[in-house]
Amino acid sequence: MTARRPAKTKKGPQRPTRLTQNLCPIGVFDSGIGGLTVAAALRELLPGEDIFYVGDTARVPYGGKSPATIERYGIEIAGMLLAEGAKLIVVACNTASALAVPRLQELLRVPVIGVIEPGASAAVAATKSGHVGVIGTRATVQSKAYEKAIHALDSTIKVRTQACPLLVPLIEEGWLEDPVTDQIIQRYLNPMVRSGIDTLVLGCTHYPLLSKALSRYVGSGITLVDSARNCAANVKAVLQKLSLSAPKTRLGGLKVALTDPSGSFLRVAEQALGLNVGDVELRSVQRAGV
Amino acid sequence: MTARRPAKTKKGPQRPTRLTQNLCPIGVFDSGIGGLTVAAALRELLPGEDIFYVGDTARVPYGGKSPATIERYGIEIAGMLLAEGAKLIVVACNTASALAVPRLQELLRVPVIGVIEPGASAAVAATKSGHVGVIGTRATVQSKAYEKAIHALDSTIKVRTQACPLLVPLIEEGWLEDPVTDQIIQRYLNPMVRSGIDTLVLGCTHYPLLSKALSRYVGSGITLVDSARNCAANVKAVLQKLSLSAPKTRLGGLKVALTDPSGSFLRVAEQALGLNVGDVELRSVQRAGV
Repeated sequence: MTARRPAKTKKGPQRPTRLTQNLCPIGVFDSGIGGLTVAAALRELLPGEDIFYVGDTARVPYGGKSPATIERYGIEIAGMLLAEGAKLIVVACNTASALAVPRLQELLRVPVIGVIEPGASAAVAATKSGHVGVIGTRATVQSKAYEKAIHALDSTIKVRTQACPLLVPLIEEGWLEDPVTDQIIQRYLNPMVRSGIDTLVLGCTHYPLLSKALSRYVGSGITLVDSARNCAANVKAVLQKLSLSAPKTRLGGLKVALTDPSGSFLRVAEQALGLNVGDVELRSVQRAGV
Repeated sequence: MTARRPAKTKKGPQRPTRLTQNLCPIGVFDSGIGGLTVAAALRELLPGEDIFYVGDTARVPYGGKSPATIERYGIEIAGMLLAEGAKLIVVACNTASALAVPRLQELLRVPVIGVIEPGASAAVAATKSGHVGVIGTRATVQSKAYEKAIHALDSTIKVRTQACPLLVPLIEEGWLEDPVTDQIIQRYLNPMVRSGIDTLVLGCTHYPLLSKALSRYVGSGITLVDSARNCAANVKAVLQKLSLSAPKTRLGGLKVALTDPSGSFLRVAEQALGLNVGDVELRSVQRAGV
């Protein structure tokens, strides 16, 4: 698939903004079902908006894959969301936010919002010691996206990162409250906690499901920053700025499509988040493209 | 991609068996790099053969995906191997063996060998109590492929299965000798060991890398069956039967191609298996097809 880049010098007619565009859904995607934590935060903050969610479960996880592959996957899934009429795209996956958002913003006319910048700005607001920790997948950590986003806001902040590749499989297995999970958390986080951070960014949309276990380990002296809520607040601000919000009197809904009908984690996420996902559509990822 | 099924009634000319066909590679594929355990067993047993190995690292893991998706992926990767002139295809992945081998055998004229039947027949030969355990991914266990293959050989054998979704991520993290891994093994295997099995099939090509830890837990009274060695013996027999073996005086080589240049597990596998992988090619999975 070759993504066509819109010619920036082209003076053709802009697609007219129609009133009905406000009723179009917010498109949300994740490599899997972890991004439902972002969908849940959007439902809470923006109950009038429809949400169309795509989980690329046929190719999950993205976290160990290369930057070029992750960018390509992101463009393909964005194509699915555009085909559903998405008025704004939320990349509810830290790995794809780190590696695909810049290219999506070049390619698309609709606003594209990732989870990195909102998480970074919340961390900068939260830290008092100026020492922030970030945990995520291997690809997110290697991208250094959080360091860049935090340093763009405040170059004096010290950022320490740690890849935690086992946390996603533990969450998908449903071992949210489990002594084995606690030991693995300790193994990953011990050097970071000892180094004196006062703020910990959960740099993967699965991780809010482990926030109890993570809080227990890091203690009350360290603030957890959950990018889901901060991302939802950013979406609200952008919709208001562009006059794209749905009418407040309306009650929106959530539609979920997956590229593979895999299943057990969906139940874990539904229970832990209290989200009513209802029927799930199946989409072929091979026909998608922009 | 639409796979064309060869018309069985067509009486067209068969492709002539040429002497050079004996020099063609054995095509081996896995969803990732776990199948290198099978490549290592083939190298040991058939040093004269060239091996072309494809790891579908862009879409790894297969173990949690649906049967239809896994079958489609298997057909696509088989297309890559055919394009390299593979004279025989080894599906060195239990999940794909369970779900894609029957369709591949319908579609292709070259022999297609999975890891399930060799593992099942070794288990039937090994058990004295007639009570066999099988561990694997969720998709392999749900397919009931091992039960079917074992019962096709001996319907009186009692088979107990257990999905172990965390073992692959632990292996890919390199935690092969680790107290956390030991605890997770205990959690998964305790009910099976207590039920009185005397034979345990490692129904995932990653698992031989954990054979020390698994042996330590199950003790000497339980025989571990490693499908890699049994699969290699099966390949040798089929090549001899079809007069497709490479000359014995020859020294073959191993070529590895991955669909994504992800990396850390490749080093774990190389070290643990003593395989010299050398340069790794990158292939796009989107252009593949039969």
